[in-house]
Amino acid sequence: MATLTVPQEVPSPTEDSETLRKAFHGWGTDEKAVIQVLGHRNARQRKIIRDTYQELYNQSLIDSLHSELSGDFGRAVILWTYDPAERDARLVNKALKSKKIGINELKVIVEISCASSPHHLLAVRKCYSFLFECSLEEDIIHEAPPSVKKILVGLVSSFRFDGAVVDLDVADDEASKLQETVALKQLDQDIVVWILSTRNVFQLKATFESYHKKYGNFLEEDIKDYGNGLLASLVTIVIRCVISPEKHFAGVIKDAVAGWGTDEDALTRAIVSRAEIDLMKVKEAYLEMNKTSLDNAVKDDTSRDYGAFLMALLGQ
Amino acid sequence: MATLTVPQEVPSPTEDSETLRKAFHGWGTDEKAVIQVLGHRNARQRKIIRDTYQELYNQSLIDSLHSELSGDFGRAVILWTYDPAERDARLVNKALKSKKIGINELKVIVEISCASSPHHLLAVRKCYSFLFECSLEEDIIHEAPPSVKKILVGLVSSFRFDGAVVDLDVADDEASKLQETVALKQLDQDIVVWILSTRNVFQLKATFESYHKKYGNFLEEDIKDYGNGLLASLVTIVIRCVISPEKHFAGVIKDAVAGWGTDEDALTRAIVSRAEIDLMKVKEAYLEMNKTSLDNAVKDDTSRDYGAFLMALLGQ
Repeated sequence: MATLTVPQEVPSPTEDSETLRKAFHGWGTDEKAVIQVLGHRNARQRKIIRDTYQELYNQSLIDSLHSELSGDFGRAVILWTYDPAERDARLVNKALKSKKIGINELKVIVEISCASSPHHLLAVRKCYSFLFECSLEEDIIHEAPPSVKKILVGLVSSFRFDGAVVDLDVADDEASKLQETVALKQLDQDIVVWILSTRNVFQLKATFESYHKKYGNFLEEDIKDYGNGLLASLVTIVIRCVISPEKHFAGVIKDAVAGWGTDEDALTRAIVSRAEIDLMKVKEAYLEMNKTSLDNAVKDDTSRDYGAFLMALLGQ
Repeated sequence: MATLTVPQEVPSPTEDSETLRKAFHGWGTDEKAVIQVLGHRNARQRKIIRDTYQELYNQSLIDSLHSELSGDFGRAVILWTYDPAERDARLVNKALKSKKIGINELKVIVEISCASSPHHLLAVRKCYSFLFECSLEEDIIHEAPPSVKKILVGLVSSFRFDGAVVDLDVADDEASKLQETVALKQLDQDIVVWILSTRNVFQLKATFESYHKKYGNFLEEDIKDYGNGLLASLVTIVIRCVISPEKHFAGVIKDAVAGWGTDEDALTRAIVSRAEIDLMKVKEAYLEMNKTSLDNAVKDDTSRDYGAFLMALLGQ
C-alpha cells in the first residue's frame, strides 16, 4: 500500500540523469524537474539512476544534490535518493550522535527495528558498519542513555522469523511474564528484552492480545501507569510499532504538524521511509484518528519545493 | 589457507551429477566415486551440482545421499554437501535439541558466532529461521542452560565490524571492566556480553593483550580460576575462538581423537567446517601443540570410507 506513483512509461536512467544534470546546470536549480524525476521513481529505479549518473558525470548524484539543494527540501530529497538501508543507517547514526538523546531520537531506532522487515534491519546493520566502521550496537552502547541500552541492543540485533507462526500457549505464558515485570516496575529484565526482540510480529501481537484478555488493560496503558521514564516510553513505542506501524507513523506525522511550527525532520522521515511501504495505510489511520486528511495536514504545514516534494511522495 | 583440493580441470556439473547418480545405482554404492566428486569441489561448485542434480533427476542430492550412505561417512558427506550456512544452521539446531546441553554442544554455537565471518553468521541466522520457523535466538532462550542464555543470545545476534579498527584506550578500559567482573565472579553482567558480542575481533584481541599486560595473567586463565562452571567455560571458548580459531579447532580435533574411541561428530564438524577456510593453519597449530601431524592422528583414528573422505578434505 505504497503512495509513490511511477509513470507508466519511465524514461531511461540515462534520460533521467540528463534531466537531473540539466536541472543543476547554471545559476539556481530547477527544483520542479528534480521532483518530477526523483519523486516518481522507486528504490530500484533510483539506484540505477545513481549508478548511471555516476558513470556519465564521474560524480555522485548525492554529492550533486548536496551542492544544489538546501534546507528541508534538500534534506528530504537526499534522504529519499539514498538506498533505503543507507538512509536508515544514516538516520540512526544521526539520532545516536544527537547532543541529547530523548524519546524522539530513540523512536528512529525502534521504527527500524520493529516496523521494518527483518531483512531490511540486517541490511541497515551491514550498511551502518560499512559507513561508520563500527557495529551499530557499539554506538548504541556508547551513546544511548543507560536505562535503554540493553533493550536497544536487543532490538537492533534481532532477526525475527518473518512469518505468521503463533503459539498461543507461549503467548499466554509471556503475557504473564510481562505482567510480572510491569507490576514490579522491572522493564529492564532480560525476559522483557528477549520477548520483544526475538519473537515474530504475529506471536507478539498474540501475546499483547492475551495480556488484554487476562488483565483487562492494554499492556501499553499499564506500562504508562507503572513505568519508569525513558524505558517505559520506549517499550510503549515498541508495542505500537509491532501492533500497527501505520498508526505509529500517523502519530509521528500528527505530532510533527501539531501546534505552531513543524518538526520537519520527523515529517520527512515518516513520509520518505513509508512512501514505498504502507503510506496509504498511514493516511487511512491518520484520517480515522484525526477526522482530517493527512494530505491536507501536510499541505497546510509545508510550502514551496519541500511541500511539493512531500505531496509527490504522498501520491498527489 | 584451505586444504580442499579441486582438480585443475573440473568436470561439468552435469558430468558430476551423472557420476554421482551412477555411484548410487543398483545394490550398494560406489563410495570412492562419491568422495572423488564431492570431496574435491568447493562450496560454489557443490551448490551448482546440487541444483543440476535436482534438475536432472527431480530429486534432491541430499535425499539421495541420505538413502545411499550411512554412519559417520554418510553424516560427513551430507554435512559437506549442504550449503555452509545450512550446514551450520543444522549443526546449531542439533546442538540445541540435544538431550543434555553441555560445553561440547555450546562450543558449536560459539564457533559459528566467534570463529566465522559476520556475514556468514547472518546467513546462518537467515537459514535457521527459514528451516526451523523460528529465530535462532528463540531456540537458544528456550533450550540453553539458564546461566549461558544471555551471552549466547548476544553472541549469535552480533554483527561485528569486519575490519582492523582498534582503539587502544577502549581496549584498556574494557580490559579493566573485564577484570572487575572476573574478580567479582560476575561474568553474567551485561558489560561482558556487550564487549564480547559487539566488538570487532581486532579490538577484542587488543583488549585481551591489554588485560595480560595490566594484570600479568591471561584473561582465560583468570576466568578458569575464578569462574563459575558452564558460563566460565563458554567465555573461555569465546576468547580462544577470537584469539586463534586454528588453535581452537586443533584442540577440538585433539579432544576428538584422544584416548580410546573417537568423537566422530566433533572430528567431522571441525574438518568439514574449516576445510575451505583455514584447515592448513589448523594443521600447523596441531603440529605445534602435539608434535605429531593432524593427518596421522586422523588416519589412525578413522577407517574405510569415513577416513578416506576426511583425508580428501585434509588435502591428501
